[in-house]
Amino acid sequence: MYQTVIEPRVSETDGVGHINNTVVPVWLEAARNDLFRLFMPDLSFDDWKMIILNMNVDYVGQVYFGIDVTVCTWVKRIGNTSLQLYEEIWQDGRLCVKGTVTYVNYDLKKQKSEPIPDLVRKELGSHLY
Amino acid sequence: MYQTVIEPRVSETDGVGHINNTVVPVWLEAARNDLFRLFMPDLSFDDWKMIILNMNVDYVGQVYFGIDVTVCTWVKRIGNTSLQLYEEIWQDGRLCVKGTVTYVNYDLKKQKSEPIPDLVRKELGSHLY
Amino acid sequence: MYQTVIEPRVSETDGVGHINNTVVPVWLEAARNDLFRLFMPDLSFDDWKMIILNMNVDYVGQVYFGIDVTVCTWVKRIGNTSLQLYEEIWQDGRLCVKGTVTYVNYDLKKQKSEPIPDLVRKELGSHLY
Amino acid sequence: MYQTVIEPRVSETDGVGHINNTVVPVWLEAARNDLFRLFMPDLSFDDWKMIILNMNVDYVGQVYFGIDVTVCTWVKRIGNTSLQLYEEIWQDGRLCVKGTVTYVNYDLKKQKSEPIPDLVRKELGSHLY
Repeated sequence: MYQTVIEPRVSETDGVGHINNTVVPVWLEAARNDLFRLFMPDLSFDDWKMIILNMNVDYVGQVYFGIDVTVCTWVKRIGNTSLQLYEEIWQDGRLCVKGTVTYVNYDLKKQKSEPIPDLVRKELGSHLY
Repeated sequence: MYQTVIEPRVSETDGVGHINNTVVPVWLEAARNDLFRLFMPDLSFDDWKMIILNMNVDYVGQVYFGIDVTVCTWVKRIGNTSLQLYEEIWQDGRLCVKGTVTYVNYDLKKQKSEPIPDLVRKELGSHLY
Repeated sequence: MYQTVIEPRVSETDGVGHINNTVVPVWLEAARNDLFRLFMPDLSFDDWKMIILNMNVDYVGQVYFGIDVTVCTWVKRIGNTSLQLYEEIWQDGRLCVKGTVTYVNYDLKKQKSEPIPDLVRKELGSHLY
Repeated sequence: MYQTVIEPRVSETDGVGHINNTVVPVWLEAARNDLFRLFMPDLSFDDWKMIILNMNVDYVGQVYFGIDVTVCTWVKRIGNTSLQLYEEIWQDGRLCVKGTVTYVNYDLKKQKSEPIPDLVRKELGSHLY
């Protein structure tokens, strides 16, 4: 499991007084930086490989400003060219968000998907849900 | 169907060169303003009723900077207290995003869900998928 | 003067109940799309030329959700390689924001600033403050 | 001086390949959380006091994805009801952003500015530039 602590920002709240729902995908993506490094070790955008296919988010509880949140990122399924993650956001001992996201390992220049390399696959295996 | 035209912003692109995936929920929510007005005619945050429960987004094709997009918003299902929408984002004749989102009509002060009023239900019925 | 109408989004408000101050630079940049087209007609990021040097924003009045805003963009000063804009945001007949921004016409590959072309200079001249 | 470490997000980059200029005010505000706590110890939006009047940002150098940044926040001037900060963003030993921001201690319900309390003034004094 990857674990990332995020401090909520005023600009991430909305008029209702909580963290706006559109911030959740931003935090979930922010918590994937280490995983992105597996596929693109220098994080260069010229050779970016991780293309998102689907995102599903369950909003289980409100998230508040003023208290750090923890994003937990697990690998749920490793396919030939694709990858599914399971993610949770916790605040103050409460589970607030559950989500899954699916990426494909895609070469944007060749416009085709590529098998996930064995070394990456092995490392991903150590973060299984 | 509600239809909303949005002009992409430089700040909504990312290093890969397209619109970042986290912008999609922002645009989809932006296109729900008229729907929010049904539940909260003065759009006051003090009596905000629409609480999001789930969001599911299929990223079907890249979205580019420099070309307007159109967000289409349909009502998919009207429950007793909840509401499901089906949404699409189109650019230049291409379907780029398909999504569903579920809201509950919720009184934040009383902390309980409320039946969707008949008048709102009738208006929602004219936007069915 | 360039004029751009923007519909505020729920995600652009904050817990205080107004549009968050960090959204103002986003709107001001969004209203520069036509100006960006002068320097980069195809809006390609590979040959992006407009690099921001300074931004100054006066927050004159609150901006609210639920009412469209108009962004007005004037050219204030055209230098040899740089460009200063004066910008205002209006809502409901009230001036809410006044700002200036300075860009340089910069070739990122050669890492050097370039004179603003005469044709662009002429067009900019028709938007002077 | 307040010091805040921030990990750049993919969603904060833009098509040119660097951190978008509109993200800078977001990071600067994020680094003011401890300062906000001085004025509003429970960070409640119902009694929010810090209203922004002016922001000035010098973009000195590009900020990149993949390397943490440090935001430094100093108190530059303490007036009767207002407060000016001086802020810097550093990345990898390079100064990337210099900015000043002015806030007023404002009671939104009474719609009037209020003197900065002595205890807050004393604490602010320990963060002078």
